[in-house]
Amino acid sequence: MELQALFPVWDKLSDTQQNRILGSLTCRDIQKGTVIHNGSMDCTGLLLVKSGQLRAYILSDEGREITLYRLFDRDICLFSASCMLRSVQFDITIEAEKDTSLWIVPPEVYREIMEESAPAANYTNELMAARFSEVMWRMEQVMWKSMDKRIAAFLLEEAAIEGTARLSLTHETIARHLGTHREVVTRMLRYFQEEGLVKLSRGAVELQDERELERLQNA
Amino acid sequence: MELQALFPVWDKLSDTQQNRILGSLTCRDIQKGTVIHNGSMDCTGLLLVKSGQLRAYILSDEGREITLYRLFDRDICLFSASCMLRSVQFDITIEAEKDTSLWIVPPEVYREIMEESAPAANYTNELMAARFSEVMWRMEQVMWKSMDKRIAAFLLEEAAIEGTARLSLTHETIARHLGTHREVVTRMLRYFQEEGLVKLSRGAVELQDERELERLQNA
Repeated sequence: MELQALFPVWDKLSDTQQNRILGSLTCRDIQKGTVIHNGSMDCTGLLLVKSGQLRAYILSDEGREITLYRLFDRDICLFSASCMLRSVQFDITIEAEKDTSLWIVPPEVYREIMEESAPAANYTNELMAARFSEVMWRMEQVMWKSMDKRIAAFLLEEAAIEGTARLSLTHETIARHLGTHREVVTRMLRYFQEEGLVKLSRGAVELQDERELERLQNA
Repeated sequence: MELQALFPVWDKLSDTQQNRILGSLTCRDIQKGTVIHNGSMDCTGLLLVKSGQLRAYILSDEGREITLYRLFDRDICLFSASCMLRSVQFDITIEAEKDTSLWIVPPEVYREIMEESAPAANYTNELMAARFSEVMWRMEQVMWKSMDKRIAAFLLEEAAIEGTARLSLTHETIARHLGTHREVVTRMLRYFQEEGLVKLSRGAVELQDERELERLQNA
C-alpha cells in the first residue's frame, strides 16, 4: 500500500483509525489548470499528492496573484482541509500546475483522527510549520528583495523544478507568480538579456548564466 | 491557579503532565524594550503572557524591521519554543513592548507533553494557525495595499491597543513597524494632516478623524 509512504505516521495509527482512512479515501485525477481549492469556502479535505504539481497562491481583490509554495509528489496539502482548524483565517487558492493524481481524506475523518492521535496531531503541526516557513521566506523576499533578485530567484527555482534551463514561461506568468505587473518583468528580462544572463524568445526564457543569476539572487 | 485560565487544555492533561509543567515553570518580569527571543538561535520555551505586551517581528540583513503580530495578556508565544518543531525554519525576534510578566515552560517539557497528549498537540496547532493567519494578513497588506492604507491601518490598530487617539509614536517607529523609511512616513503623515485626518506634534500623532481613516484603510 503506497499510502504508508505518503503518510509517515501511518504505522502509529490504530487499526480502527487506519480503516477509517482507507474506507473514506478517494482517488482523483486532476487536469493541469484546474483550481482544486478556492479560498475558505471550500473544504475539500487533506490532499496527498501521488504525482503531479500543485501551486498555492493568494489573490488580491483586483485579481493579482502571488505564489506562496508548490507541492510535489508525496507532499501533503493541509490548507485544502483548513475547515479542520478554527484558527485558519486566510484564503489560499490551490491549482494543479501539472496533471495531478491525488488521494483525498475527508476533513471530518482527518479531524477525528487528529483529535484522538497525538502522532497525527504532531505530524499536522510539522506540516503547518513547513508551509509557514515557506510563506515567511516569500514574505522576506517581497519585503526586502528588489525585483531583479526576485526574478532571478524565480527563474532558478523554475529551472530546478523543471530540470531544464529552457523555461516555457510568458512574462505575464512570471508577473503573476511574483504579484507584479507584466511590464516590470519585461523590462527586467530585457536587462537580463543584455547582461547575457538569459535568452528570450516567444513564450520562453532560457537561462544562459546560472552562476551569475545565483550571484545576483544572493547579492 | 491562574495557569488554567492561560492554558485552555490544562484540564485535559494527566496529573503527571500537570506536575511536570508546574515543577519546571518559571516566572519572569521583563522590562519594556528587552529582546526576549532572537531568531532561531534562541529556544527560551513556551511563553505565557500574564500581563504586558510582546511584539514579534522579522529583521532584514540591513536591519530593517517589520512587525508581524503582537501578544497581549493571556496570549501564548509559540515561536520562542520553535526548536520543538523541526519544520520551523525562519527567524522571528520577540521584544517586550511594555513591561511584561511571563510564565515560561521549558521547550523540552512542552515537547514531551505535546508528543504524548493529542489535546496539547491540537491546541499547539491552533496557536500556530492563529499566528499564521496574522502573518498572512500582514503579507496581504504588504503585497496589495499602498502605503497610505497601511499607515492608516497601523494608526487605527495602535489607537485600539492603547485605547487613546493620542499616540506617542515617532515617524521612525512607525517606519520600523511597517518596514519602510522614515521619510515615506513623514511625507504621508503630513498629507494626512493637511486632509485633517491627524494632528502631528513632537513624538506624537493624534487621530482627528477615525471614520475617514477607516474609510481610507478599506478603500
